[in-house]
Amino acid sequence: MAMSSVNPDLVRERQKCSFDVQELVHFIDGGEEHTLERREVENLVLDIKELKDVVPEEFLSHKERYENSIRKACILYEFFRKYSETNNTLDAFSPTNKYRVQMGVFKDISPFMLHMGMFVPTIMNQSAPDQAAEWLPKALNLEIIGTYAQTELGHGTFLRGLETTATYDPKTEEFVLNSPTLTAYKWWPGGLAHTANHCIVVAQLYTNGKCYGVHPFFVQIRDSETHMPLTGVKVGEIGPKLGFNTANNGFLGFNNFRIPRMNMLMKNAQVLKDGTYVKAKSDKLTYGTMVFVRVLIVTDMAYELSRASTIAVRYAAVRHQSQPKPGEPEPAIIEYVTQQHKLFIAIATSHAYRVTGNWLWNTYSKVTSDMGKGNLDQLPELHALACCLKAVCSRDATLRIEECRLACGGHGYMASSGLPIIQNIAAATITYEGEYTVLMLQTARYLVKAWKQASVGKVMTPTVAYLVDFSKNSNHIWENTPEGIIRGFHAVGAGKTQAAFEAVQAHEKTGLDFEDAWNRASVQLVNASEAHCRAILCEMSWAEMQRLSQTLSPNLRKVVLELIEMYIVFWALEKRGELLMYTKIQKDDIAVLQKRYEELLAAVRPNAVGLVDAFDIRDEVKSHAQTFNTVRYLKLLKVIGINMITDPELHPGCFRRARVRAPDGGGAEESSQRGARQQILPPVPQTSDQS
Amino acid sequence: MAMSSVNPDLVRERQKCSFDVQELVHFIDGGEEHTLERREVENLVLDIKELKDVVPEEFLSHKERYENSIRKACILYEFFRKYSETNNTLDAFSPTNKYRVQMGVFKDISPFMLHMGMFVPTIMNQSAPDQAAEWLPKALNLEIIGTYAQTELGHGTFLRGLETTATYDPKTEEFVLNSPTLTAYKWWPGGLAHTANHCIVVAQLYTNGKCYGVHPFFVQIRDSETHMPLTGVKVGEIGPKLGFNTANNGFLGFNNFRIPRMNMLMKNAQVLKDGTYVKAKSDKLTYGTMVFVRVLIVTDMAYELSRASTIAVRYAAVRHQSQPKPGEPEPAIIEYVTQQHKLFIAIATSHAYRVTGNWLWNTYSKVTSDMGKGNLDQLPELHALACCLKAVCSRDATLRIEECRLACGGHGYMASSGLPIIQNIAAATITYEGEYTVLMLQTARYLVKAWKQASVGKVMTPTVAYLVDFSKNSNHIWENTPEGIIRGFHAVGAGKTQAAFEAVQAHEKTGLDFEDAWNRASVQLVNASEAHCRAILCEMSWAEMQRLSQTLSPNLRKVVLELIEMYIVFWALEKRGELLMYTKIQKDDIAVLQKRYEELLAAVRPNAVGLVDAFDIRDEVKSHAQTFNTVRYLKLLKVIGINMITDPELHPGCFRRARVRAPDGGGAEESSQRGARQQILPPVPQTSDQS
Repeated sequence: MAMSSVNPDLVRERQKCSFDVQELVHFIDGGEEHTLERREVENLVLDIKELKDVVPEEFLSHKERYENSIRKACILYEFFRKYSETNNTLDAFSPTNKYRVQMGVFKDISPFMLHMGMFVPTIMNQSAPDQAAEWLPKALNLEIIGTYAQTELGHGTFLRGLETTATYDPKTEEFVLNSPTLTAYKWWPGGLAHTANHCIVVAQLYTNGKCYGVHPFFVQIRDSETHMPLTGVKVGEIGPKLGFNTANNGFLGFNNFRIPRMNMLMKNAQVLKDGTYVKAKSDKLTYGTMVFVRVLIVTDMAYELSRASTIAVRYAAVRHQSQPKPGEPEPAIIEYVTQQHKLFIAIATSHAYRVTGNWLWNTYSKVTSDMGKGNLDQLPELHALACCLKAVCSRDATLRIEECRLACGGHGYMASSGLPIIQNIAAATITYEGEYTVLMLQTARYLVKAWKQASVGKVMTPTVAYLVDFSKNSNHIWENTPEGIIRGFHAVGAGKTQAAFEAVQAHEKTGLDFEDAWNRASVQLVNASEAHCRAILCEMSWAEMQRLSQTLSPNLRKVVLELIEMYIVFWALEKRGELLMYTKIQKDDIAVLQKRYEELLAAVRPNAVGLVDAFDIRDEVKSHAQTFNTVRYLKLLKVIGINMITDPELHPGCFRRARVRAPDGGGAEESSQRGARQQILPPVPQTSDQS
Repeated sequence: MAMSSVNPDLVRERQKCSFDVQELVHFIDGGEEHTLERREVENLVLDIKELKDVVPEEFLSHKERYENSIRKACILYEFFRKYSETNNTLDAFSPTNKYRVQMGVFKDISPFMLHMGMFVPTIMNQSAPDQAAEWLPKALNLEIIGTYAQTELGHGTFLRGLETTATYDPKTEEFVLNSPTLTAYKWWPGGLAHTANHCIVVAQLYTNGKCYGVHPFFVQIRDSETHMPLTGVKVGEIGPKLGFNTANNGFLGFNNFRIPRMNMLMKNAQVLKDGTYVKAKSDKLTYGTMVFVRVLIVTDMAYELSRASTIAVRYAAVRHQSQPKPGEPEPAIIEYVTQQHKLFIAIATSHAYRVTGNWLWNTYSKVTSDMGKGNLDQLPELHALACCLKAVCSRDATLRIEECRLACGGHGYMASSGLPIIQNIAAATITYEGEYTVLMLQTARYLVKAWKQASVGKVMTPTVAYLVDFSKNSNHIWENTPEGIIRGFHAVGAGKTQAAFEAVQAHEKTGLDFEDAWNRASVQLVNASEAHCRAILCEMSWAEMQRLSQTLSPNLRKVVLELIEMYIVFWALEKRGELLMYTKIQKDDIAVLQKRYEELLAAVRPNAVGLVDAFDIRDEVKSHAQTFNTVRYLKLLKVIGINMITDPELHPGCFRRARVRAPDGGGAEESSQRGARQQILPPVPQTSDQS
């Protein structure tokens, strides 16, 4: 086990660190007790031998991948079921890293993800008490496996356009489900293809000959014993994708499929026995649930950034390349300022997203709690916030993760680096749960409305209050401080909102109706949302980090505040054009900011490895490397931290035959002793193909 | 075969087109005769039944994918061998779309790619006449299969750091090859893992006890009959990757492996029988070959952009979504200006890259021809050009392709859209054949040198001549025309070069030596290269399109010039901050450019489908869709152009069982009639696993 010794480059890096790494670990987890809980779960899960892959997933066929992931999901969820008997696992719904260890088990995505992520929450939030009493225990106990079937082949963004029908038949007191066209087929739900036996189906409700719009229904689709689709149900898989290949995304169609009346989720709207439709008190009551996943994506992206930056920063610390000075040894690539520029912003962004995401979660919790008391006032603001934050954070995080991947050169292109799957999982978030542009235009509607109110001096909700200020006075002096930049971003947000608003008006004056004018101005409207969102991200991450870091030791407080400052200055430089247009910033100020940015890179440099160590991500969760056939390569490149399992004997699978043998090393066979075609590729595991 | 009828949305779009699509097809191909040749090759190749996949590659295991691709590669290259008996296939080395049909055969990458792409060219360019006479016919005739082994596990960018040694033994007149450490293992060569039996090995040459630096050697690594690695050779595969999963990338190590003296490629340097080293006339003579692949990447990216935009534009023309106006039908998403903003720039960029890439190829041809005559004067400029153009085009194209993918929503995430593999193949080009940042800093060295010369009024090489102008006078008035913007980009290039140069000097003044000062300023130096490269791209694409379009009909000429104008205006808006800093552009000018950009979007709008039709990419080359199990989905979404093979009966493979059956359609089985687990996933084809 000599390989568990720590790489000397990393030892040196760790000695440079100016703060207590464990203090930052606890800060990121939200307290020492949360760190201990998380580590307990990680230890328990990663000790389960059956969850370790013998062959890395990328070598398997699509079918084998699914079979392997469903096998692991069964073991893992059984563990969680038992674990929940003594622990409350429902805290999984709030942002936490406690259960991220699942990423180490699945590498890609759990085929049960939508069961806990959307099926259970929908039952909790939208069913009547007696319905929840019947369904929830079964769902939490995994007696039934569910998913959430809303999107159709032809309908994603436009919810009202869904075609699946649920027609009430008062004679039998049943709903009859139908997919009248092929575009009406449900398309995408995770776990639907071969895993789920139940789902929430969102369908157009017809009763007494009238359509009342889309409503959710609880539908059993497969036989509990045989797992065969029930008669009238057509279900299957939609095929391989960029990522999410173990998510088991499926399609679903209905042909006169009947369900009892009480399978309509009746917390809000209801259909009585005789078919009478009873309206919900507010059509916004289901709105909160929609926002839920978007809110969580912000902290999810913080975590994916921490995974990617951990890999890329450690690689940069141990990879040596080029010889800028003749005769001197090749420096570690982390010494190159261009490399620091690529990587440190990923660390800073992770922290900015985590504190902003937690603030958004608290806002969400407060608003939904108020909604429970009948107060819906803050919902539009929350909606506008969640839309743009989900959109911008998913997109920027994906770009930052790709930058980390590219910063590892060719090695970042290899699946064994762990980076390709992180990038592909992050990329999906740009599209799912509200497509980027669609969400940005939702926020733009709120901004334009707010701008109109601001221009007549109305009192504004907090996150757009700055519009009032800038509708009156856009003549702020420029200051090269985080606060000054935030004010500058407010000016940009206000200026771009005004410009987009005026563009809409100008198009209207040419005779276009409002929606056509809106479309013509939509590129500018998206830009306004983006500017607004960047102002929010800078403002809230700075305010929250100031607040949260008050209890930290001075050394650490300095470090985390510098990270947020780096995030703010980075974006000031990226958006210098907008600042030049909408603020009093001068060319000389930009030079000052450039200099400050370079100072911050230099300040982060000695702490870089300590900062990614503080993300405290075990190698099993971070990458595939421990089961990769070039484990000796990793040993040699010394990418490996203190807690990586790297002894090849621990991974006795198919790669033993394939290991590279160092000329000075022992044990592995020479390639020349085997047939060339058979020597490296793993054997295909035995699978039963009964077709 | 009703499915081959044309989708009504596309018919309508095609009726709007203002130009003759066939004329543009010929223009893109470089003349009607080239179009005919390309189509002949496409027809011949796509008629070979054995090249059609029964199961799409994404469903296969890593091992099965390789086996399938090598099977197809053998058939395809045998076809090309026969085809070359009556046709000259060596024109494949210049930029042409004639052989792109291979992308339709492999979807991913041919395991023989490096044979024709680097093994053969290296023999042609670097071996002595008698060596070429021996090796070249065998290589061209595919009697031997080769690859190019340069990069090592620990050494990519830094060529001088390669560790593999070739030590001359005058007693036996042989070179002895060794991999002294694990980092010395060759790493990455395509086809090396299980395919190639020969390769060019780049190694440190030792003779008479002295090291003479890296030289190329012709090395047989596998037995011609058994295909077993020869004794002393260790060879295998490096594992799955983001893309290039059929490229069969491998590793290679040597243990006292002997090759004859005459296996050193001796066109330039030589080793005599007694071990005497004879220097090459110039150490730059191998330089031209390095530039070769970088030059081709620019036109490669033009082609990948044409593939991606064809898919995304047709999708946008037939996908209907949302209802901006109550009561009206859902518009095709191409009507949304935000969608036009995402897609049309991809079309424009493809044209800009094609004409710039062809210009670069002509420059390359001229410079290498001059080199043959002993004139190396233009080599540094060509090198600086190829570096930044390769870097910027690969990166921007990847971003544009991802934008196309995202513009298709969830469907763009599915492998069946064809977009994920295009994106992943494009992403690799950012790293291979010279990593992005490394190349940008190469160009920066040339720029800084040029800036110093310009500041003392020296005559400059053409592509940096603008520096003289701006070193004297940066006070040009601003004009909102393509020429005015190009002048503006020259000002930005000059301004950023100056700023970076001064930053280096300022760091030097603090006592840093030049290389440390260079490193501290490197982010600014990369920015200077980028600005220079954008100026080149705008200038050359505008000049070349002006020149090339002179013989076109007026309607078409207008269209192609508007596309390049769109490319230029798009980048003026993207880089408005830099223009504000380095030119006399005003806020009002930016509003004028924004308006012009929107006018150009509106001008392209009616021609969008015609423009992608003119890329003339057969569906087999464009995407996987024709073998996808949701072929009926595509029918319904009507993404399908006039020449798509979409009848499911033509694809009688494993998906027959899995087809979605439309409620109103006939023939397919219901899912409920089969076991849920077995119904969709394809059977694993029988493969022989003899291990």
